[in-house]
Amino acid sequence: MTADQQNTLNQVTPREPAMILVEPQMPENIGGAARAMWNFGLTKMRLVAPRDGWPSPKAVAMASGAGRLLDNARHFGTTAEAVADLTHVYATTARPRGMTKRVLEPEAAMREAGERIAAGERVGVLFGRERTGLETDDIVRANTIVTVPVNPEFPSLNLAQCVLLIGYEWRRLADAAPRAVASETEMAASAEVERMIDHLVEELDEAGFFFPPEKRDSMLVNLANLFRRAPLTTPEVRTLRGVIRALAVKRRGS
Amino acid sequence: MTADQQNTLNQVTPREPAMILVEPQMPENIGGAARAMWNFGLTKMRLVAPRDGWPSPKAVAMASGAGRLLDNARHFGTTAEAVADLTHVYATTARPRGMTKRVLEPEAAMREAGERIAAGERVGVLFGRERTGLETDDIVRANTIVTVPVNPEFPSLNLAQCVLLIGYEWRRLADAAPRAVASETEMAASAEVERMIDHLVEELDEAGFFFPPEKRDSMLVNLANLFRRAPLTTPEVRTLRGVIRALAVKRRGS
Repeated sequence: MTADQQNTLNQVTPREPAMILVEPQMPENIGGAARAMWNFGLTKMRLVAPRDGWPSPKAVAMASGAGRLLDNARHFGTTAEAVADLTHVYATTARPRGMTKRVLEPEAAMREAGERIAAGERVGVLFGRERTGLETDDIVRANTIVTVPVNPEFPSLNLAQCVLLIGYEWRRLADAAPRAVASETEMAASAEVERMIDHLVEELDEAGFFFPPEKRDSMLVNLANLFRRAPLTTPEVRTLRGVIRALAVKRRGS
Repeated sequence: MTADQQNTLNQVTPREPAMILVEPQMPENIGGAARAMWNFGLTKMRLVAPRDGWPSPKAVAMASGAGRLLDNARHFGTTAEAVADLTHVYATTARPRGMTKRVLEPEAAMREAGERIAAGERVGVLFGRERTGLETDDIVRANTIVTVPVNPEFPSLNLAQCVLLIGYEWRRLADAAPRAVASETEMAASAEVERMIDHLVEELDEAGFFFPPEKRDSMLVNLANLFRRAPLTTPEVRTLRGVIRALAVKRRGS
């Protein structure tokens, strides 16, 4: 990479995490989330398949002073597409659902997100549907779970409130914390990791690894979580793909 | 005080700060504030003259799972009455309006509130009206201002969101922090300090202290703030009243 390319990359790298709303149902809540973001200076919203379509005049009306965020919001068809370019994804959910994933509270998560962004990473935070939250299929795409320490008898935060608490912690720490210097390592984007896992699953299918067949889904979830637990660098993903290829060739050859 | 009296006192001392809503306008927002409180395990709500009266079926409907808080909420006619029994009052406001008052962010305020409560104090947090916030007359009754570090371009937190952030910090620190042991000093309740200030103002009026007359209001605010900056103990308030009395007698006598 030339120095010029590096400069361009730095300019387009967002200096804040993207807030990613997964299949929000009520346009009012998209507007409320935009206001909660802008209360704490966050501007990068991504939307995954809002139920009532996009753009949404209702959402804009509800956003009042934060309408610009919605004008600039990026729209995606699936969670996978929405996180494809990100190197680290946080999922806000109250229930880790027995997955082996790292769980942080908002403060620790946003401190870490700030360090990652300062080091040149691209970071996003997933927020689930109003009624049902994030589904397993969204959560496996995340590297880290963020859980707000709510009253277990009444854990009913709404979408905008959840965005508000994450934004609050982001701003608090962004105001206070010294930032790490940019690291030399290039972290792998979510899409690279996903292609690697797809490649692996393809080979494992061919090898008859998933047995009995009714266990395939849960085995896939475990695998996807496993490779997203520790952040991977691009060279590491390349290495893993080499390993998969090598094993597959060996098996085919034997 | 006998050991029995001490035990009774301990039992009735609330182990959490009271959330005090000053003249809330919309019953929906009272309900929303109740939910925000209960999300983080807070239960003690006080209401100062809600615009649409009390009790309010609308507020209860909006509180859904947190209706019990509204059943137990205490209703007052004025801010002074609502804080009368408290030894330390926090006021949430974005604008210190040129008053010389201590300003803390929510985390530091709730850490301190926890320490005060552990030491036997009675603590409350004031929240202002939806459109206009707290007025000077409310703020002078507070010992400390709490300011949320919002985006200065868009500082539009609503009532329930403000309660939510205070509740979040309370719970976070209550879960984590070791508590101080109860101190021996008896802190003065807000009403004691208020009576002392009234006494002082009465004497000062008689002495022609407030001159020119059009400056009286701002001088009163400065005085009220001055005596609420540092927390006073009951013996200290008694001493101050003695000082006021002594000075007044001396003047009358001369």
